[in-house]
Amino acid sequence: MNTVDYLLQDENDLHIQAKLDEIIERNRRYTKDGAVATYIPGLRKANRDDLGICIVDKNKRIFTSGVCDKKFTIQSISKVVLLSMALMEHGFDYVHTKVGFEPSDNPFNSIVTIGNNDVKKPSNPMINSGAIAITSLIKGDTYEEKEANMMAYFKKFTANNDLKINYNVYMSERSTGDRNRAMAYLLKSHGFLDGNVDEILDLYFKQCSIEVDVKDLAMIGLNLADQEFINDRGCVISKDVARIVRTVMFLCGMYDGSGEFALKTGLPSKSGVGGGIMTCVSDAVGIGVFGPSLDERGNSVAGMKVLEDLSREFDLSAI
Amino acid sequence: MNTVDYLLQDENDLHIQAKLDEIIERNRRYTKDGAVATYIPGLRKANRDDLGICIVDKNKRIFTSGVCDKKFTIQSISKVVLLSMALMEHGFDYVHTKVGFEPSDNPFNSIVTIGNNDVKKPSNPMINSGAIAITSLIKGDTYEEKEANMMAYFKKFTANNDLKINYNVYMSERSTGDRNRAMAYLLKSHGFLDGNVDEILDLYFKQCSIEVDVKDLAMIGLNLADQEFINDRGCVISKDVARIVRTVMFLCGMYDGSGEFALKTGLPSKSGVGGGIMTCVSDAVGIGVFGPSLDERGNSVAGMKVLEDLSREFDLSAI
Amino acid sequence: MNTVDYLLQDENDLHIQAKLDEIIERNRRYTKDGAVATYIPGLRKANRDDLGICIVDKNKRIFTSGVCDKKFTIQSISKVVLLSMALMEHGFDYVHTKVGFEPSDNPFNSIVTIGNNDVKKPSNPMINSGAIAITSLIKGDTYEEKEANMMAYFKKFTANNDLKINYNVYMSERSTGDRNRAMAYLLKSHGFLDGNVDEILDLYFKQCSIEVDVKDLAMIGLNLADQEFINDRGCVISKDVARIVRTVMFLCGMYDGSGEFALKTGLPSKSGVGGGIMTCVSDAVGIGVFGPSLDERGNSVAGMKVLEDLSREFDLSAI
Amino acid sequence: MNTVDYLLQDENDLHIQAKLDEIIERNRRYTKDGAVATYIPGLRKANRDDLGICIVDKNKRIFTSGVCDKKFTIQSISKVVLLSMALMEHGFDYVHTKVGFEPSDNPFNSIVTIGNNDVKKPSNPMINSGAIAITSLIKGDTYEEKEANMMAYFKKFTANNDLKINYNVYMSERSTGDRNRAMAYLLKSHGFLDGNVDEILDLYFKQCSIEVDVKDLAMIGLNLADQEFINDRGCVISKDVARIVRTVMFLCGMYDGSGEFALKTGLPSKSGVGGGIMTCVSDAVGIGVFGPSLDERGNSVAGMKVLEDLSREFDLSAI
Repeated sequence: MNTVDYLLQDENDLHIQAKLDEIIERNRRYTKDGAVATYIPGLRKANRDDLGICIVDKNKRIFTSGVCDKKFTIQSISKVVLLSMALMEHGFDYVHTKVGFEPSDNPFNSIVTIGNNDVKKPSNPMINSGAIAITSLIKGDTYEEKEANMMAYFKKFTANNDLKINYNVYMSERSTGDRNRAMAYLLKSHGFLDGNVDEILDLYFKQCSIEVDVKDLAMIGLNLADQEFINDRGCVISKDVARIVRTVMFLCGMYDGSGEFALKTGLPSKSGVGGGIMTCVSDAVGIGVFGPSLDERGNSVAGMKVLEDLSREFDLSAI
Repeated sequence: MNTVDYLLQDENDLHIQAKLDEIIERNRRYTKDGAVATYIPGLRKANRDDLGICIVDKNKRIFTSGVCDKKFTIQSISKVVLLSMALMEHGFDYVHTKVGFEPSDNPFNSIVTIGNNDVKKPSNPMINSGAIAITSLIKGDTYEEKEANMMAYFKKFTANNDLKINYNVYMSERSTGDRNRAMAYLLKSHGFLDGNVDEILDLYFKQCSIEVDVKDLAMIGLNLADQEFINDRGCVISKDVARIVRTVMFLCGMYDGSGEFALKTGLPSKSGVGGGIMTCVSDAVGIGVFGPSLDERGNSVAGMKVLEDLSREFDLSAI
Repeated sequence: MNTVDYLLQDENDLHIQAKLDEIIERNRRYTKDGAVATYIPGLRKANRDDLGICIVDKNKRIFTSGVCDKKFTIQSISKVVLLSMALMEHGFDYVHTKVGFEPSDNPFNSIVTIGNNDVKKPSNPMINSGAIAITSLIKGDTYEEKEANMMAYFKKFTANNDLKINYNVYMSERSTGDRNRAMAYLLKSHGFLDGNVDEILDLYFKQCSIEVDVKDLAMIGLNLADQEFINDRGCVISKDVARIVRTVMFLCGMYDGSGEFALKTGLPSKSGVGGGIMTCVSDAVGIGVFGPSLDERGNSVAGMKVLEDLSREFDLSAI
Repeated sequence: MNTVDYLLQDENDLHIQAKLDEIIERNRRYTKDGAVATYIPGLRKANRDDLGICIVDKNKRIFTSGVCDKKFTIQSISKVVLLSMALMEHGFDYVHTKVGFEPSDNPFNSIVTIGNNDVKKPSNPMINSGAIAITSLIKGDTYEEKEANMMAYFKKFTANNDLKINYNVYMSERSTGDRNRAMAYLLKSHGFLDGNVDEILDLYFKQCSIEVDVKDLAMIGLNLADQEFINDRGCVISKDVARIVRTVMFLCGMYDGSGEFALKTGLPSKSGVGGGIMTCVSDAVGIGVFGPSLDERGNSVAGMKVLEDLSREFDLSAI
């Protein structure tokens, strides 16, 4: 862990900056190996060549390199925020009645064969069906109240009051969301989903469509990394919840490439098809990466390479 | 086939009647081996002990035995009528783009694991997902027109103008139909379903809730058995469509007990959880059976035994 | 059924012969749409263009057309003979403890996910795992006795004392049979297979490697078609066993194309990757077809087309 | 990490000992909640009430508490040693051609449905099929040489020259190993297994039958924990291999309870149905636990509780 301390406490910030720039530069070529997501127009417009990183430490020192000012939709990285929220508000045991916490080697959008009497929870909160179950746990008397609570949580997590939903993307997600609708009704028929399916899916599509930049992701990471970290709005999550969420990210945060990514980086991370990867180093830093060129699993190709190099060169592996 | 001719042309109807009565009597004890469907209140009220049969031949001779005047909901037997309608109006090749025609050993309500890019049609029109896809093919400019067309078809098939939907059962089906809703959205997301999911499901729940008696079932069977049969409203289906539908019934008309039932009776049949079984003998008769005590697969326990005896004693096996 | 009688009793054999020749000629072009099996050298040598048919009736009248003198290995068509043998020697109920009788939409060589305590029989005797279970039921005190009993059965069924195993093919099957070995051990671990796995598989590979021609297949079909048929060695199977076997063939004799083939022909049939198809018409004829150009499911492309035309033109559909 | 240093460097060993004794005492009651493995006689004889722990640090300080002198078979914990060996001798990339490194939510003994042309590697080296593939990578010209190499590795890893195979258990494993045999042949048929299946399985059954005690397990853990640790026979594995193996243990070391266990302890661990759990804390200690009373997944019930308490009280979570 000495290296991390070094990363954070070194007076010579220039040294860190130089290393970051070099890592971004070196891995930019991997953007050629993937493709931007195309299932909705809003994602299709991304620039495949983009690559950037932001690192924030608890003293609010910020390092950035590459393309860092662009907004992109958070997509599946929102699953981490929602899981944190559900664990804080309902406790692990109740959340566990709705979703499992086991990694799966099925794709993120799998729908499992279920006979008449078999009842199977979603494997974990990082696959779509699990995240939809989690979304149904948002508190609020009305749809509007639930949406407000949800957005407030994202704003607290990112310490960014200006966070907004990209309505273009949201509308597209909604209009192509029949598979997620199928999952929601299946969950409901098995008692893993309470409430109105249309409302829950609407909140699900909205959360995926929140626009962030790499700094926002790094701030989410910092909340998960440092239990003593208190952002401007107070402490967001407890030490225990942070540890649970980091573990879930480590086990299944990178779709069906989670195992290999964990082997190569040792970093609890979560990716989204908007091109983002959010990760953290315990007691140290939060990290956001952006690279919309994806591999066939939906992970940023160059983004993963950047984190691999970063972990090796600064010795950041958790395990 | 001589025996069938005997069944139909024998002057001594009393002989046939005596045999039928004996078969019903002999198998009534099997009603104790099953249970009535309980997933909705409307079905729960059925009398487990009931058992009855009706046989109709092309000369409109009718034999009945046992409990024959009770109404029950047609349930999955409607799948046969809808398939016939779809084949008549769209032709086999187009229908085949929406559903497969292969028997399956998965349960009637199975939802198959589908990865991101795998596309798999429902196995056949006799499982729920296949029947929902078929329902989406009903012609009509409005929902009302579609419902009217559908009902007209059922009335023609049964030669019964008084056919009605049991609204109690329909409302129950609709309120417990989340699994079917899941299937419909999954089909839609893979391009196997056109149109409005809520409307299609509504028509699906309504068709399942049509009230029939054993004579109505026997009349449906007669339409499938005898291509020259013309009911009061004219010829309902073509010879080719009748053959296709009979084959589908033979292959997969009795849920995941279709194989065993085919071995034991050789009769192309379709069952419903309302307790009905509809079957036919080519060029000869249509048969309706009612026995609401079901086995764990959803087939009438005593009803199957009755058809086993009938097939053996009158040598009715198609194969 | 008049047409069948016509086929058999018509004095004008020349008329039948002309029709057969025309059907073979017309469908020969479909041999271009498939490919010969390549997984072992012995099958790879087949001539893709070959196409022939043989029809035998109970009066031992024989019609042939096309390529009829070539030998090929019986492959999966042997499953029908073995099932008949098992049913005759052990009865349906005992055989049913080892295999199911439900058609499946899984491929012929599927191995089903089985958790620790789930126990699932092979779906039916027409898929490899089912046929291996059936093979374990061959009676005999020694391996040699079992092989002799098995071969005697094939000779009786075909009324051909000269039937031989192609040792070249047998050795190839054995050396590439690891998947079948896997199935056998899986069956054994679940109690569906008694005896020595290596011996059972050896008998399985040998039965697949028996060399036949279209007349041999037609004779097998005749045994299944005509319960009163008595070949030179006496009656081979009972009426009931013949009916069961025909039903199983109808439900699942053409791999995962069984449903579509049944719709198009109405003929209970069994295919093998050697290019053969064996079928029958109850109380009438046995039919053998040879066409080694296969579709991706393992069925003879042109052979199926021939049977489609034959069924339509002579009105042979069972259902 | 301060607490870990405390555990190791505290002069007051008595304090640590007292805590360990208390943890063992407190959790002994959980032995009542499970049952010993019964699938072979050798395991059935275990005493359900037993519970013990051993902790070893790099200075060779050893703490023990509870039942620590009993021998038990290593069972699935051997998978970790074999994986380490394979990675050291063949490198990650080659090993990766034979097994995946993704956690799975299928049971340890699952056999996946594979169609004709689908090729799917075992999900990871911690399930049986993956471990069998790994076993095939043991170097040696003869079976005897392979066995000698394998045993030498276990002896180096445990620093215990007296390690022996329990031949009673080995023979039982072999005689009940048909499911593993099925897996091996399936792997071979897909090209994931080279060599003689019987030999590979024999080595697999032998490795599972090696007798260890909690100190042996703790020594294995120490090799994985401390890359600078050099046992009496020299350095066993590289820093990189140790990190990969720890990550695999974290992701999938506790059968299909790996996720929940990781959430609760944060310890990379591997369990066996002999009742052992082996775990480690990076740069600190190796830990062996013994408690043959298992839950339905095959993990020691009380053993897991002990590690939960230990992790919380000494703050050992890796993540």
